[in-house]
Amino acid sequence: MSTAVSPLAPKKYPKMPAIDGVRIATAEAGIKYKGRTDVLAMVFDEGTTAAGVFTRSKCPSAPVDFCRQNLSGGKARILVVNSGNANAFTGKKGRETTSLTGQAAAKAAGCTPGDVFLASTGVIGEPLDAGKFSHLLSGMVKDARSDQWTEAAKAIMTTDTYPKVVTATVKLGDTDVTINGIAKGAGMIAPDMATMLSFVATDAPIAANVLQDMLSRGTAKTFNAVTVDSDTSTSDTLMLFATGAAAKRGAPKISDPKDARLGAFRRAFNKMLKTLALQVVRDGEGARKQVEVTVTGAKSARSAKRIALSIANSPLVKTAVAGEDANWGRVVMAVGKAGEPADRDLLSIWFGDNRLAHNGERDPGYSEAATSAYMKGDNIAIRADIGIGRGKATVWTCDLTKEYVAINGDYRS
Amino acid sequence: MSTAVSPLAPKKYPKMPAIDGVRIATAEAGIKYKGRTDVLAMVFDEGTTAAGVFTRSKCPSAPVDFCRQNLSGGKARILVVNSGNANAFTGKKGRETTSLTGQAAAKAAGCTPGDVFLASTGVIGEPLDAGKFSHLLSGMVKDARSDQWTEAAKAIMTTDTYPKVVTATVKLGDTDVTINGIAKGAGMIAPDMATMLSFVATDAPIAANVLQDMLSRGTAKTFNAVTVDSDTSTSDTLMLFATGAAAKRGAPKISDPKDARLGAFRRAFNKMLKTLALQVVRDGEGARKQVEVTVTGAKSARSAKRIALSIANSPLVKTAVAGEDANWGRVVMAVGKAGEPADRDLLSIWFGDNRLAHNGERDPGYSEAATSAYMKGDNIAIRADIGIGRGKATVWTCDLTKEYVAINGDYRS
Repeated sequence: MSTAVSPLAPKKYPKMPAIDGVRIATAEAGIKYKGRTDVLAMVFDEGTTAAGVFTRSKCPSAPVDFCRQNLSGGKARILVVNSGNANAFTGKKGRETTSLTGQAAAKAAGCTPGDVFLASTGVIGEPLDAGKFSHLLSGMVKDARSDQWTEAAKAIMTTDTYPKVVTATVKLGDTDVTINGIAKGAGMIAPDMATMLSFVATDAPIAANVLQDMLSRGTAKTFNAVTVDSDTSTSDTLMLFATGAAAKRGAPKISDPKDARLGAFRRAFNKMLKTLALQVVRDGEGARKQVEVTVTGAKSARSAKRIALSIANSPLVKTAVAGEDANWGRVVMAVGKAGEPADRDLLSIWFGDNRLAHNGERDPGYSEAATSAYMKGDNIAIRADIGIGRGKATVWTCDLTKEYVAINGDYRS
Repeated sequence: MSTAVSPLAPKKYPKMPAIDGVRIATAEAGIKYKGRTDVLAMVFDEGTTAAGVFTRSKCPSAPVDFCRQNLSGGKARILVVNSGNANAFTGKKGRETTSLTGQAAAKAAGCTPGDVFLASTGVIGEPLDAGKFSHLLSGMVKDARSDQWTEAAKAIMTTDTYPKVVTATVKLGDTDVTINGIAKGAGMIAPDMATMLSFVATDAPIAANVLQDMLSRGTAKTFNAVTVDSDTSTSDTLMLFATGAAAKRGAPKISDPKDARLGAFRRAFNKMLKTLALQVVRDGEGARKQVEVTVTGAKSARSAKRIALSIANSPLVKTAVAGEDANWGRVVMAVGKAGEPADRDLLSIWFGDNRLAHNGERDPGYSEAATSAYMKGDNIAIRADIGIGRGKATVWTCDLTKEYVAINGDYRS
């Protein structure tokens, strides 16, 4: 497995501030990896609210089932995440592991198992022995500190080549509140959900139903608009926690999704989700280029997104980008195979600002030299205008390189 | 571009017999390739019937439009195919090219343009100049011979590493009739249709409506059940021609699809389609292994096929096979992402005879050594039993190797 950091990694990482009411610890349990952390505990003060969105896979992992069940309470006291083993397709043993881990975490955090959330990422189908890390949890809770966000992002990595973090401070009413987020994911990335794991926390006092509304809406144009390889994980989990600690400093309590005071927070939160989602794409296995696919003029927004994903998931489009080849004929192919309304003779295609095709044929003014130069960049924008309506969508992916094949040809062994 | 012949190529090729009423010529027009043939003319005696199935792409090529229009007549006198340029997404120029080629072919064969069929394969979006080869057609028709079937298969190759041919002789009534088929296709292969081009001809006297019935039914479990990269071509064309010449030797004329005398012919024809479709898979770009995916126990046959294609198109499953890694967790993932009814806890998975997973978890009797040995073979059978119904389907694909990326990263340039 390649250990080189993606060339698309951020040039610099933000210094992650504390979130009042959140403490973090990481540990080395040796579940699969050696010489690195592989367990994360995120401890929340009493009163923390929670929301989540999960994979739509028909074969979800045991931790996904566990989280879905606990989410109805809308409260959280501790999140436990391990990397190296997904505890997916592990049957009765998998459920025993989540149950045992849930009990150990509840005991460590001084709460009920209903206030525990779990996530696991790594190999599918190998039984995960809760005994490998559950005994560590009480010590981790004791040692947990508020300045460990980047460490948290590192502990949940699998084939990721860099930790994914983001932070923002915004006004809620007249009070500054902070939002921190982490994510991991490098392969098996596709809607829905287009990340394996991501966790966001804030000190804002926001009710669980409002968190859920923000999260569900926020994913559509962010995590649900990125794809690395069209393969949807069994474990995808995106959770949002709000400790409410900022209420002490005067932040208003928000219990209505339509509360106008939520505007700045929602915008900042959506931007953070997009940043995290793009960090996942930019760390796509073997990725050398980020690809933004925009479809305009489709029959509807839904139709535009389907066409955009057809382009973004096409192995032939992705290998052409890897080869720095402006092979727009493959974009025509991908529009055609999407099965959505389209009229070949109205279709136009751009790579960056270079219009290659117009009204169903090659653009007479198209410059091969200019486009070839454009393809050498590491941010490639593809646009297809379908020409029949007003539907629009943007999705993001990465190129398909030999390294993707190498990484995934010997991941398990 | 690699020029090595696929390791999965046939060990030997059949000697292709003549089909009474069919004459073939090939030529070097230099459309894109140098030093090889790139134009095929297949000339049919008067009275030849025709049927066809075509890509479901919303952006079909100009020749596909041309063929669809002419097919209503149910008759054929000449087929002209070129490789190197698909004449797809070429707008008005593309239609002019098919019109000019159609007229030149009709003149050469002494028929009307309505009896002409055309196919083009190669790069999308480049205008195809009919003048490059239409002047060759009358000479080709004059020189056409009945023993050129393998030459025909060679002239239509693009990234194919070997020509694809098949032949069978069967009884129609008490008379022997012959069926010959050729195909090309190596990438941009997915239902529907799962080949770029394939042409089958027979001397049997069969009416056009019967040909169409046989062809439409025959593709479902053959060409529409193979995928190389999930990318559907704009040019997929499969046609069946019947000259009827065997009537002179006593073969009965068939005009009813339910005619019982058609049984042996239909079985042989379906087997030939499967052979050609598998030859396409086995020449999948960069392919080193053939993969047969069978789904049983699904809610319906349709559901089974969707799940099977989800497995067969998964880059993670295909790279695992390339890496000789029995990573059955990725099969679980692909079942889960198909969106079809499934119960994780009833799922069983086999690689060959090795049952790896049963009732939603790893099979306790699973042998890593035996399965690893199995994965080294070049024919890999994956079976998933969904455990909820009686729906069954089989599809075929190949592995995803670095060579696929290499071939497609610099195809156009």
